[in-house]
Amino acid sequence: MKQSELFTKVLREAPKDEVSVNAQLLIRGGFIHKVMAGAYEYLPLGLRVLNNINQIIREEMNAIGGVELSMTALQDKQTWEKTNRWSDETVDVWFKSKLKSNADVGLGFTHEEPLTSLMKNYISSYRDLPVLVYQIQTKFRNELRAKSGIMRGREFLMKDLYSFCRSKEQHEEFYGKAKNAYLRIFERVGLGDRTFVTFASGGSFSKYSHEFQTLTEAGEDMIYLDRKKKIAVNKEVLSEEVISDLGLSKGDLEEVKAVEVGNIFSLGTRFSDAFNLNYIDEKGQSCPVIMGSYGIGPGRVMGTVVEIFHDDKGIIWPEAIAPYKYHLINIAKDPQSSESIYQTLLDKNYSVLYDQRDETAGVKFADSDLIGLPLRILVSDKTLKEDSVELKNRQTQETQLIKIKDLSKHLKK
Amino acid sequence: MKQSELFTKVLREAPKDEVSVNAQLLIRGGFIHKVMAGAYEYLPLGLRVLNNINQIIREEMNAIGGVELSMTALQDKQTWEKTNRWSDETVDVWFKSKLKSNADVGLGFTHEEPLTSLMKNYISSYRDLPVLVYQIQTKFRNELRAKSGIMRGREFLMKDLYSFCRSKEQHEEFYGKAKNAYLRIFERVGLGDRTFVTFASGGSFSKYSHEFQTLTEAGEDMIYLDRKKKIAVNKEVLSEEVISDLGLSKGDLEEVKAVEVGNIFSLGTRFSDAFNLNYIDEKGQSCPVIMGSYGIGPGRVMGTVVEIFHDDKGIIWPEAIAPYKYHLINIAKDPQSSESIYQTLLDKNYSVLYDQRDETAGVKFADSDLIGLPLRILVSDKTLKEDSVELKNRQTQETQLIKIKDLSKHLKK
Repeated sequence: MKQSELFTKVLREAPKDEVSVNAQLLIRGGFIHKVMAGAYEYLPLGLRVLNNINQIIREEMNAIGGVELSMTALQDKQTWEKTNRWSDETVDVWFKSKLKSNADVGLGFTHEEPLTSLMKNYISSYRDLPVLVYQIQTKFRNELRAKSGIMRGREFLMKDLYSFCRSKEQHEEFYGKAKNAYLRIFERVGLGDRTFVTFASGGSFSKYSHEFQTLTEAGEDMIYLDRKKKIAVNKEVLSEEVISDLGLSKGDLEEVKAVEVGNIFSLGTRFSDAFNLNYIDEKGQSCPVIMGSYGIGPGRVMGTVVEIFHDDKGIIWPEAIAPYKYHLINIAKDPQSSESIYQTLLDKNYSVLYDQRDETAGVKFADSDLIGLPLRILVSDKTLKEDSVELKNRQTQETQLIKIKDLSKHLKK
Repeated sequence: MKQSELFTKVLREAPKDEVSVNAQLLIRGGFIHKVMAGAYEYLPLGLRVLNNINQIIREEMNAIGGVELSMTALQDKQTWEKTNRWSDETVDVWFKSKLKSNADVGLGFTHEEPLTSLMKNYISSYRDLPVLVYQIQTKFRNELRAKSGIMRGREFLMKDLYSFCRSKEQHEEFYGKAKNAYLRIFERVGLGDRTFVTFASGGSFSKYSHEFQTLTEAGEDMIYLDRKKKIAVNKEVLSEEVISDLGLSKGDLEEVKAVEVGNIFSLGTRFSDAFNLNYIDEKGQSCPVIMGSYGIGPGRVMGTVVEIFHDDKGIIWPEAIAPYKYHLINIAKDPQSSESIYQTLLDKNYSVLYDQRDETAGVKFADSDLIGLPLRILVSDKTLKEDSVELKNRQTQETQLIKIKDLSKHLKK
């Protein structure tokens, strides 16, 4: 895309009330715009990053048998009263409103209840199980404070998968697969090295749940990490008993700040009991369905990536989620060579943003560093004298002079 | 996909309170599920249809220069007070709620206000115009009654494009392009023959707005159609003056029921005036930006298609938006041939749903007719005796016996 066709421009300053680094850089780069604390619009560049993250998540969920659907934000009171989660005293993040009939409605902050209710139409026999469904859908949470940019929103996208299994064995087999799929997702988006499976509080069905915590000073959680074993424990469950239970030793644990980028949770029969979601087994016996839930916030992943991958000039996108891979920049007097390179890249389906604006080289370089595409292709009078372009890696800052005729050999899709 | 991997099943009955044909068929076929009147979950088959419609819309919006973004549902009071549209007396479909701070928030029923506000960051010169942006995003409207299934929702997806132009000429040029793009969309989703540009009430800037009305008894609008000229007038603006203004004659107009599947509207400077969204022209003069808005409800399109394309057995999907193109059905004793055909189709990237369930032929045929995929590939002991399968067109009911070795010649992507 030509940069002039993008309506956004790099802004010199982020809003003064914006304290988080991720939102400051993303707003200045034209990726997002703040509507209110915790609610951000995704502008074209930001939406491309978000869609790339969503696509990686979708591929990994499909690979473990997940089937995609899309539920509603609007929730009715009756459904949530069955689990005692309608009351503002039990759940303090509801946004609530009323229909014209004066009936209460809420905006879904999660979807266990309506999904369990839905499954009563479809699950009746052991032959129907397992059922593994997910959505990438907007959640609403009326947070008291929302100061972490897109890392904690009042309105945000979430991938939530729910599993419905016939037995603890079937559940645990899938739970293990989901855990591995999550690790692959964080690896693919570029957070693999810094993301650790973290033991957190479970419930009556399972002693622990598992969080995926990414190390960053911007995180709101404190975890205790054994780097060698690649296991962490959330502060909220840390005790002598837990340490010994997990085969860890206190001396090996490092206290670090982290952000929870995902979590997986064994729900047992809590929801199926409340909704009488049962199945008939081979012997004709009625048994409750065993459930699990598995969440990732794509916006939080995006924010976390920015918190980690930036320098004083701007963002440094990992290739897999960058809005475009290449930033083609013309500063030559005659734009003809750039135009021709741009057309060739488009024809070959390369993902490229082309800065042909009438701006100084200094402005273009500064904008390009802030936007943070992985590779910059510079066309200047100097490079053209050698029939070349300069390829620069945003992360390593390494540059290479490459003959224009050889360019495609040096580029990757 | 194997039908057994889909958790949904064909239901014998739709909910008793569901009066619309589209919702009855879509619920029974496992495409959607009703949460409350006007709020439906999209199950895997339904989500595939919706995504196909979205993709067609997206392609046509990109083709006329639209750039995609995604705004928030949460709206703040201050922004909407600028146009006097916050008050429940001026806008009676708001869902409203409160932040913890007790500040008012609403759920967006449209997005002119926040988008005009956003553009103040990016539009300042004539060089910045035109700006053409769109989103495919969830709207909330607190409708008093919602009895038309997915054709009128309290929560529904909408594609809304907004244009920002420097002059009436630039605006009208784009408005014309958008009108043509809309006609292409309705043509591609299968509604072309029955969808007519309909003159409806305009505003202070433009005498008329344009609706795209699709003829169906399920529609909530009454329009007056000149079939020869392919032009209609909405009842709400019909008058002697309008008829003569449009060069129509009363005797040629047919009164028909229709559903508004899209509309386009010249907004003039109503919103740019309210937000002081101005640009500096070549002469250094400050001028207000001219705006337009362009909406289509993908769910309403889907509902309209079902209202029009069904018979007493079920839905008849147009190819372009069908969840899968082929329904492969095995009723042979030995499933080996079907399995092998399924694998071949998958390998060649055909879009196929495979019914290998342990059900009677009668159940499979009835389910297949209800789900309504365009082409059925039947594998039975009878067809296998002739090394063949039976290909049946859901719409024409025509069948053909085709040698398995020749199958791929008869199939289309």
